[in-house]
Amino acid sequence: MYIGFSEAETFLRNCQDAVIITHRNPDGDCTGAGFAMKDILRQLGIRSRVVCHDVFPKRYDFITEGETEEDFEPQTIIAVDIADNKLMGKYQEIYGDKVQLCIDHHISNKNYAEKTLLRADASAACEVIYDLAKFMGLKLSKHCVECLYTGITTDSGCFKYACTTPHTHEVVAEMMREYSDINFTRINRYMFDVKSAGRIRLESRLNDMIETYLDGKLCIIAVTKELIEELGITDGELEGFAPLTIQYENAEVGIFIRQRADDYKCSFRSADEVNVSKICETLGGGGHAKASGCNLSGDLDDIKKQLIEAVSKAL
Amino acid sequence: MYIGFSEAETFLRNCQDAVIITHRNPDGDCTGAGFAMKDILRQLGIRSRVVCHDVFPKRYDFITEGETEEDFEPQTIIAVDIADNKLMGKYQEIYGDKVQLCIDHHISNKNYAEKTLLRADASAACEVIYDLAKFMGLKLSKHCVECLYTGITTDSGCFKYACTTPHTHEVVAEMMREYSDINFTRINRYMFDVKSAGRIRLESRLNDMIETYLDGKLCIIAVTKELIEELGITDGELEGFAPLTIQYENAEVGIFIRQRADDYKCSFRSADEVNVSKICETLGGGGHAKASGCNLSGDLDDIKKQLIEAVSKAL
Repeated sequence: MYIGFSEAETFLRNCQDAVIITHRNPDGDCTGAGFAMKDILRQLGIRSRVVCHDVFPKRYDFITEGETEEDFEPQTIIAVDIADNKLMGKYQEIYGDKVQLCIDHHISNKNYAEKTLLRADASAACEVIYDLAKFMGLKLSKHCVECLYTGITTDSGCFKYACTTPHTHEVVAEMMREYSDINFTRINRYMFDVKSAGRIRLESRLNDMIETYLDGKLCIIAVTKELIEELGITDGELEGFAPLTIQYENAEVGIFIRQRADDYKCSFRSADEVNVSKICETLGGGGHAKASGCNLSGDLDDIKKQLIEAVSKAL
Repeated sequence: MYIGFSEAETFLRNCQDAVIITHRNPDGDCTGAGFAMKDILRQLGIRSRVVCHDVFPKRYDFITEGETEEDFEPQTIIAVDIADNKLMGKYQEIYGDKVQLCIDHHISNKNYAEKTLLRADASAACEVIYDLAKFMGLKLSKHCVECLYTGITTDSGCFKYACTTPHTHEVVAEMMREYSDINFTRINRYMFDVKSAGRIRLESRLNDMIETYLDGKLCIIAVTKELIEELGITDGELEGFAPLTIQYENAEVGIFIRQRADDYKCSFRSADEVNVSKICETLGGGGHAKASGCNLSGDLDDIKKQLIEAVSKAL
């Protein structure tokens, strides 16, 4: 059932002992949303813990550190930024069909939770949570605003992507006016600019691997297990490279493929007009119009053929 | 003499036959500011032309194209985004000491014009022009807003840098609400993401050249004439690489050095706390706290020593 701010407020003010689930391969938005929600619940006197199938990447230490996860039998199950309970990883089995409140911004949300606060026009789940906290009249902590800003800036590509709305800029203007002691520039620097020498080399290597199809309108970078082993990197280190696939001027769709244990994770990006969410839905996935994904199994060459055909139809 | 919006309005409404000067090595801000100002003057019934020492780079075609530059004897000299008339190149001799109105946002502005509208807290000259146009009660054309947005987004690094204020976000929110038919995402894509295969290779090459000094707190990339010849690139193609110098986590100051005909252009970037404008002032240059520059002559190794010493003192 889709609900509004008022019902979400009632739910939050009356819940207890909550588990907050974030999606696997955690990004800035689900990490920020998870810990912002924990901060908000703490303010309401409700204990909670944030869980994730994967370890939160080191670059989000400023969000996660200092947070001790209390041990308690959960009474409340909340999901943030999770469009589909399949994205919970190992927590799907435990909590997948028990989610009482889901706060999300994905138009592709599967409506798997008892109550879903969905704002598909929000740049990030963190933007929804900010608006909800404002609606509830809460005065957010500095840390909470750092979490929320991180989610908004990462999901919007630092206000670069089409999910950035006037309201996104208004929310951020308000944050910056009210929390002038936060070093927003530093957050952006760490989210977008700081790279290890290894990551810089990796990016160069991936740039050398761009394959173009369909008169250059489709670009693919495919990273195999062999390459991952050769480079000595972890799966987490391959996060954030999908935008490399739409660097070329003619590119309309880009796909970043990563081989995993049993399948290939395909991250789609749209340069401008193509709705890649629709393409991904035909392949069993989903997401946003400009950034979506699907997971495919089989032989890499066959997968590429399948992807090229699906994109060709959409162009 | 420093003036406010009211006096700038009076000046603009009463001027005629204006030349609008932009700085050499034109960037998104001076290009956007120049053509936005031309658009505003046209609306006031005043003819003008935009001049620049260099050719405007191709990526600003959407700003400059369709603009025919009329031939007339100028009665009014306006400079936009020019902190020092030395930055006018060949136009310094013709107009350098005749500028009647300068609109700028550089704290280092030399006050060389008869009247200067300086807002050092603005992210871009384009932000100042937007505020001035609002003050004047003008309804801007779509093209004018595209020009102004381009200046703001490029000078603020897509709202990433410290010059981004709450007001910057408010201005952009207002632009996006009022001009929903503008494809802001496309502007950002072309300003930040689209790269030629050559530029991608160039970036990889420059990344390989990062030198670290002072325990990694200073990073330098130095591009010599020999390298420029070897790579077969023009000076304009080296624009926009200075941020590469502050990619490493420990970097506090980065310097991108480019050899020119008679000297070396040194572009400074500050990662966080160091005011590089002050360092550049000791070397005869200037700019913003986080992005400044100076030009040095002599032997490259001696220049590096001089730079390392100047940065070392500031750390």
